[in-house]
Amino acid sequence: MTLSRGARALAQWLLLGGGVGVVCGVASAVFLYLLEEATHFRESHERLVYALPLAGLVLGAVYGRWGGPVRGGNNLVLDAVHEGDAQVPLRMAPMVLAGTVLTHLFGGSAGREGTAVQMGGSLADVLARRLGVGPDARREMLAAGIAGGFGSVFGTPIAGTIFGLEVVVVGRLGYESLVPALVAAVVGDLVTRGLGIHHTVYPVPAALPLTPWVLAKWLVFAVAVAVVAVVFVELTHWLKKVSEKHVPWMPVRMALGGAAVVALWKLLGTSAYLGLGVPEILRAFVDPALPVSAFAWKLVFTALTLGVGFLGGEVTPLFFIGAALGNVLARLLGLPIDLGAAVGLAALFAAAANTPLALSIMAVELLGASVLPHVVIVSTVAYLLTGHRGIYPAQRIARLKH
Amino acid sequence: MTLSRGARALAQWLLLGGGVGVVCGVASAVFLYLLEEATHFRESHERLVYALPLAGLVLGAVYGRWGGPVRGGNNLVLDAVHEGDAQVPLRMAPMVLAGTVLTHLFGGSAGREGTAVQMGGSLADVLARRLGVGPDARREMLAAGIAGGFGSVFGTPIAGTIFGLEVVVVGRLGYESLVPALVAAVVGDLVTRGLGIHHTVYPVPAALPLTPWVLAKWLVFAVAVAVVAVVFVELTHWLKKVSEKHVPWMPVRMALGGAAVVALWKLLGTSAYLGLGVPEILRAFVDPALPVSAFAWKLVFTALTLGVGFLGGEVTPLFFIGAALGNVLARLLGLPIDLGAAVGLAALFAAAANTPLALSIMAVELLGASVLPHVVIVSTVAYLLTGHRGIYPAQRIARLKH
Repeated sequence: MTLSRGARALAQWLLLGGGVGVVCGVASAVFLYLLEEATHFRESHERLVYALPLAGLVLGAVYGRWGGPVRGGNNLVLDAVHEGDAQVPLRMAPMVLAGTVLTHLFGGSAGREGTAVQMGGSLADVLARRLGVGPDARREMLAAGIAGGFGSVFGTPIAGTIFGLEVVVVGRLGYESLVPALVAAVVGDLVTRGLGIHHTVYPVPAALPLTPWVLAKWLVFAVAVAVVAVVFVELTHWLKKVSEKHVPWMPVRMALGGAAVVALWKLLGTSAYLGLGVPEILRAFVDPALPVSAFAWKLVFTALTLGVGFLGGEVTPLFFIGAALGNVLARLLGLPIDLGAAVGLAALFAAAANTPLALSIMAVELLGASVLPHVVIVSTVAYLLTGHRGIYPAQRIARLKH
Repeated sequence: MTLSRGARALAQWLLLGGGVGVVCGVASAVFLYLLEEATHFRESHERLVYALPLAGLVLGAVYGRWGGPVRGGNNLVLDAVHEGDAQVPLRMAPMVLAGTVLTHLFGGSAGREGTAVQMGGSLADVLARRLGVGPDARREMLAAGIAGGFGSVFGTPIAGTIFGLEVVVVGRLGYESLVPALVAAVVGDLVTRGLGIHHTVYPVPAALPLTPWVLAKWLVFAVAVAVVAVVFVELTHWLKKVSEKHVPWMPVRMALGGAAVVALWKLLGTSAYLGLGVPEILRAFVDPALPVSAFAWKLVFTALTLGVGFLGGEVTPLFFIGAALGNVLARLLGLPIDLGAAVGLAALFAAAANTPLALSIMAVELLGASVLPHVVIVSTVAYLLTGHRGIYPAQRIARLKH
C-alpha cells in the first residue's frame, strides 16, 4: 500500500520534475552556447571591454525600465520558495540570459549560477502556474527549478540537487523537494549534454591520506577561506549599498562600475580577471608560480562587477578566487598544489553561499573522490566561521550556526 | 566579531568532538580487532556454529538479567538524542561489543554499525555527563558519538558524519551537530587507522555515462531494492514480534533463533551466509554466476539472527544482500555487474535506514566517484518507495515522504 502511494508520488514527480528539467536543460544549453560564443568573441576582440560602461548603461536602463521584481535576482526566487506569494515572472529568464551574455561579452567578471537559478526558477514557476498545481507542489517545483538550473549549467546533477535543497535555508536540509529536485537536475543535465554542450574538465588531484598534521593544515586553510569569503560578501554588499546611495540611477551606476573595471583592467595590463576566468582556474591546479595576488584581484573585479548590478552569478569567479587562494595556501602550508586548488575552489563558494554539502558533492562530481574528506572538512569549518552572512540575503536562518 | 564567535565554537567542538572521536576510535579499533579474530577463528573451526543456540542462551540470559535499557540498542541512542531524559548507560559499550563478537564467533549473520553506534553513543554520553555540559551540547555529543562510531568502524568519516545527522529524523538533515559530528568522525577514523586497523578495500567500478535508457533501468532497479528493503524490515520486525509473543523468555528465544540459523546452515550446506559475509560481497562485484537466490538467503539468515536478539547491526549484511541483488539485477537489466553490485550495496541500506545521502557518500568513499549519479538516483527513489518504515523504529518522521 505504501509502495503504491510511493509509486504515485514518484510518477507525479517524474512528470513535474522531468518537465522542469527539460525546460531548465534547454535554457542552460542555449545560455552556455551563447556564453561561449560571447567569451570567444571578446577574447579575440579585446577592445570590446572598453564598451563595458556602455553595456552597463544599456543594461541598467533596461532593468530599470522593465525589470521590476526581476531585479531581485536569486533573492526573488528564494523568496518565492519561502513565501509563495511572490511570483517569478517569465520575463526573468530572457532578461537574465541576455544580461549575463552581455556582461561577459564586454568582459565583466561574473559567473553563471545566478542566471541558471533565475532561468530555472522563472520557467518552473510558469510551468507550475500553467498546470495549476497547489502551493506545496509549486514550492517544490521552484526548488526543482533551482536544482535543474544549477545541475544542468555546471554538468553536476547531484550537486544541483543538494544545492536546490541547501540554499533556501541556512542550517537545515529539508527532503520535501528531494525527489523533484533530483529528477529536474538529472533530466536537465541530460538535456543540456544531449544538445551538444561540453563542460570544463578539471584535473583530478592525487589522493592524500589524512593525518593529524594534514588536518592541522586544513584548519589554517579553512580560516583563510573564511576570511576571504567574508571579505567578498561584505565588499560586494558594501559596494552595492554605497553605490546605490550615491548614484541612485541604475544606468549611471552600472556605467561607473563598468568604467572602474575597465580602469583596473588597463592598470593591471592583463585580461586574466575578466569574464569567467576558466583558463586561470585550470592554471591554479598546476602553476607553482601563480601570482599571490591573483585571488585578490579576481575578488575585486567580481565584487565591482556584481556590486553595481551586472548579471551572472558568483560560482565561477569564486571558483577562480578559491582555486588561486588554494594554490597560494598550498605552497605556503606544504600541501599538494592541485589539491589545494581543488579544495579552495569548492570551499570558498561553500562558505560564501552557506552550502557546504552541495559544494563538497560538486567537488566530487568535478574533481573525483580523492578530494572528499579534505573538501568537506575545509568547507564545513569555513561555513562555521563565516557566521550568518552570505551572498544571498534572502536565505532564511533555520538555526544559528553557533 | 562573528569570526571570533565562530572560532570559539570551533575550538569548543574540536575539544568535545575530538574527545568523542578518540574514545569512538579506540572502541572501534578494539571491536574490529576482536571481530576479525572471532571471524577467522570461526572460519577455521566451523563446528563452533553448532554452539550458536548455546551462545544465544547465554547472551539472552546476560542481556535479560543485566541489560535493562541497553536492550533498546540503537533505538535507545536515538531516543536519547531526541528526548534528552533517556540516559545511555556506560555498560552498553562493553555489553554490545562482547555480544557482537560472540554473535560472530558462533556464526550469526549480523553487522557492525549497531555496535559502533551504541558504543559511540554510550561513551559520548558518559563523557557529556563527566564534563557536565548542557542539554543541547549533550545531544550534539550524542550525534557526534553516532558519527564517530559509524565513521571509524567503516573507515568512512564523511558518511559517518552525514549518518549521524540523517539517521535521527526522517526527511530532514539538521546542521546543528554538523561540526561536532565531523570532528568526531574524522578523529575517530584517524585513531582507528592509527591503531593499525585496515578496512575492506572494494573494487572501483568503471564510470557509466547516464543516458535515458540507463536511467529507466535504474528506476526498475530501485523498485526491486525498495521491495527487498521492505521485506527485510517487515520480516525482521515480524520475527521479533512473533518470537517475543510466543517465547517471552529471552534466553530460550535466542537459543531457538540460533537453532534455526544452524538448521538453515546445514540445509544449504554452505557457510557463505554466516557472519559479515565480506568475501561474498566482493564476489558480487565480479561473478556473473552468483546464485540468484544468494540475496534472499542472506536476508533470511540476517532477519532470523537480528529478529531474535543477536547483536551487531545491519550494514554489512545489507551490503551483502544489496550487492548480491544488484549483481542479479545488473545481469537481468544489462548493466555492468560491478556497478550493479556497488549501487545495490549502498542503496539497500539507504532505503532500509532512511539515509539516502549518508549511504550515497559512503559509496563514494568506498567505491569512488563513478558511482555517484547512479547511487543517488537509486537510493533516493528506493527511499521514497519504502514509505515510513525502517530498521530503526525510534527514528522520528519530520515530514511525510509523500
